[in-house]
Amino acid sequence: MTLLTDLLSAQYLPFILIILIVALASIGFALYLFFKIRALPEGTPRMQEIAKYIREGAQAYLHRQFKTIIIIGAIIAIALIVGIDLMNWLASKFSMVFGAFIIGTACSLIAGYIAMHTATNANVRVTNKVKEEGVSGALKIAFNGGLVMGLAVVGLCLLSVIIMILTMGAVVSEPAAIEGSIIGLAFGASFAALFALLGGGIYTKAADVGADLVGKIEAGIPEDDPRNPGVIADNVGDNVGDIAGRGADLCESITGQFIATIVLAVILFEAIGPPDQYLAMLFPLVSCALGLVATLIGKLFVRGKDTDEPWNILVKGMYVTTVINAGFFLLICFLMFEGNAALYFFGAGVLGLVAALSIGFVTLYYTDERYRPVKSIAKATEGGPATTTISGLSAGLESVGIPVFIMIGALIGSYFLGQAAAPALGIASEEAATFGTAIGALGLFSVCGMVLSLDGYGPIVDNAGGIAEMAQLEDNVRKETDRLDACGNTTKAYTKGYAIATVALAAVLLFQAFNHVVKQRATIEFILTDPLLLGGLFIGAVVVFVFSAFALRAVGESAQDIIKEIRRQFHEIPGLKEGKEGVHPEYAHCVDIATVSALKHMIIPGALIIITPLIVGFALGVTAVAGLLIGAIITGLAMALFLNNGGGALDNAKKLRKKLRDKSDPQSMQCYNAAVQGDIVGDPMKDTAGPSINVVLTLILTIALQFAVVFVIY
Amino acid sequence: MTLLTDLLSAQYLPFILIILIVALASIGFALYLFFKIRALPEGTPRMQEIAKYIREGAQAYLHRQFKTIIIIGAIIAIALIVGIDLMNWLASKFSMVFGAFIIGTACSLIAGYIAMHTATNANVRVTNKVKEEGVSGALKIAFNGGLVMGLAVVGLCLLSVIIMILTMGAVVSEPAAIEGSIIGLAFGASFAALFALLGGGIYTKAADVGADLVGKIEAGIPEDDPRNPGVIADNVGDNVGDIAGRGADLCESITGQFIATIVLAVILFEAIGPPDQYLAMLFPLVSCALGLVATLIGKLFVRGKDTDEPWNILVKGMYVTTVINAGFFLLICFLMFEGNAALYFFGAGVLGLVAALSIGFVTLYYTDERYRPVKSIAKATEGGPATTTISGLSAGLESVGIPVFIMIGALIGSYFLGQAAAPALGIASEEAATFGTAIGALGLFSVCGMVLSLDGYGPIVDNAGGIAEMAQLEDNVRKETDRLDACGNTTKAYTKGYAIATVALAAVLLFQAFNHVVKQRATIEFILTDPLLLGGLFIGAVVVFVFSAFALRAVGESAQDIIKEIRRQFHEIPGLKEGKEGVHPEYAHCVDIATVSALKHMIIPGALIIITPLIVGFALGVTAVAGLLIGAIITGLAMALFLNNGGGALDNAKKLRKKLRDKSDPQSMQCYNAAVQGDIVGDPMKDTAGPSINVVLTLILTIALQFAVVFVIY
Repeated sequence: MTLLTDLLSAQYLPFILIILIVALASIGFALYLFFKIRALPEGTPRMQEIAKYIREGAQAYLHRQFKTIIIIGAIIAIALIVGIDLMNWLASKFSMVFGAFIIGTACSLIAGYIAMHTATNANVRVTNKVKEEGVSGALKIAFNGGLVMGLAVVGLCLLSVIIMILTMGAVVSEPAAIEGSIIGLAFGASFAALFALLGGGIYTKAADVGADLVGKIEAGIPEDDPRNPGVIADNVGDNVGDIAGRGADLCESITGQFIATIVLAVILFEAIGPPDQYLAMLFPLVSCALGLVATLIGKLFVRGKDTDEPWNILVKGMYVTTVINAGFFLLICFLMFEGNAALYFFGAGVLGLVAALSIGFVTLYYTDERYRPVKSIAKATEGGPATTTISGLSAGLESVGIPVFIMIGALIGSYFLGQAAAPALGIASEEAATFGTAIGALGLFSVCGMVLSLDGYGPIVDNAGGIAEMAQLEDNVRKETDRLDACGNTTKAYTKGYAIATVALAAVLLFQAFNHVVKQRATIEFILTDPLLLGGLFIGAVVVFVFSAFALRAVGESAQDIIKEIRRQFHEIPGLKEGKEGVHPEYAHCVDIATVSALKHMIIPGALIIITPLIVGFALGVTAVAGLLIGAIITGLAMALFLNNGGGALDNAKKLRKKLRDKSDPQSMQCYNAAVQGDIVGDPMKDTAGPSINVVLTLILTIALQFAVVFVIY
Repeated sequence: MTLLTDLLSAQYLPFILIILIVALASIGFALYLFFKIRALPEGTPRMQEIAKYIREGAQAYLHRQFKTIIIIGAIIAIALIVGIDLMNWLASKFSMVFGAFIIGTACSLIAGYIAMHTATNANVRVTNKVKEEGVSGALKIAFNGGLVMGLAVVGLCLLSVIIMILTMGAVVSEPAAIEGSIIGLAFGASFAALFALLGGGIYTKAADVGADLVGKIEAGIPEDDPRNPGVIADNVGDNVGDIAGRGADLCESITGQFIATIVLAVILFEAIGPPDQYLAMLFPLVSCALGLVATLIGKLFVRGKDTDEPWNILVKGMYVTTVINAGFFLLICFLMFEGNAALYFFGAGVLGLVAALSIGFVTLYYTDERYRPVKSIAKATEGGPATTTISGLSAGLESVGIPVFIMIGALIGSYFLGQAAAPALGIASEEAATFGTAIGALGLFSVCGMVLSLDGYGPIVDNAGGIAEMAQLEDNVRKETDRLDACGNTTKAYTKGYAIATVALAAVLLFQAFNHVVKQRATIEFILTDPLLLGGLFIGAVVVFVFSAFALRAVGESAQDIIKEIRRQFHEIPGLKEGKEGVHPEYAHCVDIATVSALKHMIIPGALIIITPLIVGFALGVTAVAGLLIGAIITGLAMALFLNNGGGALDNAKKLRKKLRDKSDPQSMQCYNAAVQGDIVGDPMKDTAGPSINVVLTLILTIALQFAVVFVIY
């Protein structure tokens, strides 16, 4: 009897079929949507030309980035064979860590590629739709573009995990035997995502900062002006950073979440074994699959009139998805767990869902121009760039408070709900409580398909606006794309808050998994007063701060490279600055320089993150690693919120100042310029360092989890 | 037999006499030095007038600040009587928490007052000495001014602690009975220091930013120009923020360190009792008293020629003090502990001393213009204010790394040295290890007299330069005061790194004390996976971030008030901007506005810090408090280093750009202006939020320690 034959029995088969069918169907539907978008007209020849530039730039970047990631990945895979698999084989144990690692890496890269490819095809069609018909149709294209990404990424994650379980299950007889190998999946996904996000993040902001500084401020030409040599690189950046990076990011946090829950399910339910153990293992996959179905139903409600606020149209889909998803969650809780336990777990899931929604809205409060924080930054522009920046930093630091309290509430609440489920489950109370937190996190995760779609929307409409500007379309087209774009900032703020919350929860779960894996093999208790644990906590905080430093510096240095190149072109290409007919900048050169510089700068911070847990583990032992993980989680969560929200608030304060700008009033222009400077400070915070920290957390944790057994033996 | 009669026996009397004599002698010598400085001539009538303005402004501010602190303090004292003392009295236990709290508060306030009073008398005499004789004599006055502060503050702390022990010892029969009350001393000192530092920090930077923004950038007049209405407020700020605030700061961290070590000594040596228990209690006071003697010897070496680099003159004193201090430390280790234990503890103390020295030098690396970080910020000014700021933030974030590793090394090292001392001491190994970390911290603390003197030097010479500028003295006088001032920046960077390290160590000790107080009364183990503990850790991080947000915002808002007032004066006082003869700005008005604004803005963040541990303790229990404390310590240490060093680096990058500035080259001027903006961002980081976080840590910890017993019972 293998695990596979067990799983294919009547009790589990329906669930496995749900997972497989939904995963395949959503990938299929994503393909269908993609070709539907591709079939739409691209507009004028100029628009087509610009879109091609962007598409080709993004592809060129991604190819080179993939090459770098594959080389580093190959080194790690070899290390995994030698360090883990070989040892297991010699002990005659099943082990396939390197294989899982490779598949995880591939998934992350493919997710990024699909997202980028869709977005670079959707952007110009959105512009054209605005031009031809109006906002509501264009909004739908942009949303569908995001949906392709959401469906494809989540489907891919589901598929890779379930197929890994089934194929490895054909060889072994019980789940404990694959536990170690399957972690490799999360490790690979996180590894590739970190480099993708970091590289993409450096690229996008270096290009943005470079183009803005020379273009807007030195040359005095508007944003997205076709004369600016950095403008294509800037638009490429949106696609390789915000889109491809985010695709990889969500892929890795979903995979991390799956793996953490599966490992926990295997360990926590070990005492009572199947069927509960197997059902608990399948639960995260089933709930996520049904979340995708809820997303597709929610999609039907994303419709409205041209005059409707885009955000109101989009948020309707979000609400519908959430409610339907809650219903699905209730259903599977009752199908997969007995009586009371089902109710308690449903409660935990709802806590997670509510937390997801509310953290998004808190982020919105801190980064939307309608509320106090952004307004006060806009007011601070009167004092110049410095007071603007101080105000933005302050808003970011303050924004850490409420989301963390919501998360603590959800964590502690779902812990105690899980504890209450213990008698019905028949496992120990602490074990049930831990699984309760996992269910809470799943509640939050289950709407990720919808959130990813909203997330993809932003950069697509941002690009659409850029294309309208570069193709010099009529003013009213630009105005309408601006409306879509303003909503894109809102969705971005909302989904970023969500992304941070999901990562923090996934990180806590991974830590729980680490804790249980260690405790299975050694009698150890992580006590707060242990000096090694304290040391680890401090190191965790240091890693987060130093990594942020490297990420910010990388943007600064890469931007310098681009600034030099843009200045050179303005200087050397006659007639460029004046906008002489037929004179075009050498866009491709800027794209090239940004590519090389971003790839160069992502290596050291990335390596820092991979090496730290290993050094701490081998030099100070497993207790220090536990400290490192928790130190990184608490500091990382706070830092991510600070950087993302602070940067977002500065960005929107600039947008607010732009609206109020009166070109004939020097004081108003001074305020606007101060706001632009503030935005530039915020850019690498919110688009490079902030998002990368998310992945830093999961990566450190998956590495620690992967090597937990080795640390214990060592 | 009371504790007092015990302590007055032949075995302890010599040590008590050492403490009393050194404390009184250093206060006496400080008075002598003060009057010696006061007897020096003040220079021209204009200089006298300016100095009087500054002195009176600082005094006026401090009086109002004291009033606010006393009102809040009275409320807390009443709460302490009702909440703790009364309960103890009803249970017929000795209790004097409110009394200790009042004395602690008073010490902190007096320390701040003495420091401010000395500095505002020394500053103008330094200017005059430069004018009359030259740099080396002036440097000595400035150093002596700092020394008055160092001797008085440390002497005061010693005196208050030893007198509290002796008087309370007259009533009770064993040290455990006073343990609870004596914590009140640290609580009071921290409470007053937090408000003093926060209020002073807001004041100084609001005035600085306000004066700079309107003066340098809008009106285009140089720094410290007498036409600027904010210039006196700016100089007042240096005295109430850097001087009075720092005096209170060091007073509270020294007191906190004493109290933590005494509480630990009482508990850890309980099993074997006196004499070891009493000796361990006296050890921190004796080592600090001998540290003062070493400082006085070191002072003799602070001498040099007019052409010597001021830093080289000062650092000689520092080295001599350190070496002599190490000798004293060895001596008392052997006098107070047996054989091997003495050696191990001496080793721990040396670790602390070395850590103190090296953290100072790391800070120097990150903030001095000779090294890479500041140079790269200066280079980033080419991209404008935003890239400058990004570069500064990045340098600050990076600077967290090495100091934390040094601290972890010292902590873990002294822990294991303490463990090795266990057999010789005859107490359990974990207890001895904890006392080892206390000794390590004492090693670091014992040079605090010297460091405080260096620390006082900076603002005095800064003011001296300001007075030279405002009194329109000859260029070469200003040039010489600039030389003194440049060294002031170095000493400031050095001593700030030291201050952060001392606070972090004191915080760790206070946590150890908290841990032991709790465990004496309840069987509880702080386990990392406990959800309440995790929740507490997250809250600890949040407190640090949100507090920083409030502190930064307070500066921004107060600066707005001052900017308005300066603009009004430039607008309404005819001839002011043009520098018409006989036209003076209304300095006092600016001072008033800064005072009111700073006091208003210090209330909410201060209250946040006092209330948080109480809410967490009563709502979530003592486990969550433990999490809160550690969360605050690790995040607070990182944040303090980031803010202080980032701000310091930005400041010195501006100074570097100022040196390179070429007024005829617009590009060079652009870089300089970008550097000025960067400096303004850094100002509230390094002088308001950063230093306040130090006190936040000790205050949260002393409150938790004070209420530990209540939490456990509750």
